[in-house]
Amino acid sequence: MTPATDKQAFHGRLLEIGKERYHDKHPFHVMLHGGHATMTQVRAWVINRYYYQSRIPMKDAAFLSRCEDPRMRRAWRSRIEDHDGGVDEGGGIRRWLRLAEAVGLDPAYVASTRGVLPATRFAVDAYVSFVREKPLLEAVASSLTELFAPKIHSERIAGLLEHYAFADDAALAYFRQRLNEAPQDVAFGLAYILDHADTQEKQDAAAAALIFKTDVLWSQLDALYSAYVAPGRIPPGGWDGREGVVGQTVSTEAAE
Amino acid sequence: MTPATDKQAFHGRLLEIGKERYHDKHPFHVMLHGGHATMTQVRAWVINRYYYQSRIPMKDAAFLSRCEDPRMRRAWRSRIEDHDGGVDEGGGIRRWLRLAEAVGLDPAYVASTRGVLPATRFAVDAYVSFVREKPLLEAVASSLTELFAPKIHSERIAGLLEHYAFADDAALAYFRQRLNEAPQDVAFGLAYILDHADTQEKQDAAAAALIFKTDVLWSQLDALYSAYVAPGRIPPGGWDGREGVVGQTVSTEAAE
Repeated sequence: MTPATDKQAFHGRLLEIGKERYHDKHPFHVMLHGGHATMTQVRAWVINRYYYQSRIPMKDAAFLSRCEDPRMRRAWRSRIEDHDGGVDEGGGIRRWLRLAEAVGLDPAYVASTRGVLPATRFAVDAYVSFVREKPLLEAVASSLTELFAPKIHSERIAGLLEHYAFADDAALAYFRQRLNEAPQDVAFGLAYILDHADTQEKQDAAAAALIFKTDVLWSQLDALYSAYVAPGRIPPGGWDGREGVVGQTVSTEAAE
Repeated sequence: MTPATDKQAFHGRLLEIGKERYHDKHPFHVMLHGGHATMTQVRAWVINRYYYQSRIPMKDAAFLSRCEDPRMRRAWRSRIEDHDGGVDEGGGIRRWLRLAEAVGLDPAYVASTRGVLPATRFAVDAYVSFVREKPLLEAVASSLTELFAPKIHSERIAGLLEHYAFADDAALAYFRQRLNEAPQDVAFGLAYILDHADTQEKQDAAAAALIFKTDVLWSQLDALYSAYVAPGRIPPGGWDGREGVVGQTVSTEAAE
């Protein structure tokens, strides 16, 4: 057992991972937030990212299912509530489907998860499996991309509002709400990691888990880029750019 | 694929399982509810049953983690909320610890799960694994012992109030609250099973899952009986009848 480096240095190491690898740097996001994505590309993003959104509560439930401490379960449970909402209303998944409607997609098509790229499924399913199977410390550490999320959500809200006709407060409610929720989640997770990664080996494992999670996010955008930007080769089973598009609700392919 | 028998007959088959195998018939419960258990036996029951209570939210989270339909997740999630309660208050686990205090046990000792019989752990862990691994239909079916729970809770409240000095409304709050919660849970689960077990094979699998769950409950009482009634041979690691007992708070071993 090697003694751990001090908490402040370890915290800095985690932040450095975000600076180097978080998906705010991905060319797809640069394109999206800068107003250079076509509506087909925007829709492909909404369709694929829905799969990620819809699996987050399953990931958090997998975490709860392994968590023997009722206190920790009580603190963690709000993540499921935030995403799934109540029986009749609320929640990130429904807010994401409002975004789907705003970009001219049939929300029932998006919710069906048909057309989601296989690479998206593989990456997201790997995240759920990771949280189901790895030591709790690593499962918690994999959530720490939330450290970097407020910045990307703010950039996204500003970028979409500036550049796209579909963007308004209702369409972007998902991102605004995450700006409220993510800070309390990440404060809990970060404190847990800084307290419990008390050896060099555990710090390394936590850092590796955070790197894994940045890979999960990044690879989803690589798959989107490959299918819908360059070379633009949609793989078998991927959304064809037409299914689920509803009438003329978004006629302005202005950015195209 | 064999056609299913009709829903009413299948419902009757499920109820029959409860009549034959539910743990209200177990001699330990007959003894407990009839006022013939010593305080040591009552405490052993409280200590061991806590382990079951504390794993129920993990079992339900395991279910959620496999549940791809957000609507079903939203309906099922209340089970976790009922048992874990909020960050600061409420929930079946805390109500069970009030019962622990009422019977003269240190709730921190009970919550530590030290002294829980190995056979209790094996049975309860088998239930969590079952729900984590089996088809969703069987996972839901294993919850249907709730069909039989209101009767045992009512008998228990009446029996404990009549026979034991420790029993009052605060001590028995867990059971009263379950009388409110269980009917809505079981209505959902039963409707799901009656709708989805649409072949003979699925009906058989659902019935087997319910039988499995009655085994989980029954075997916990067999282990209690063996350790603390007859032959009264406490296995290595099992509660010794003294640890965690707090002062004189329950001096009336009246039933002893």
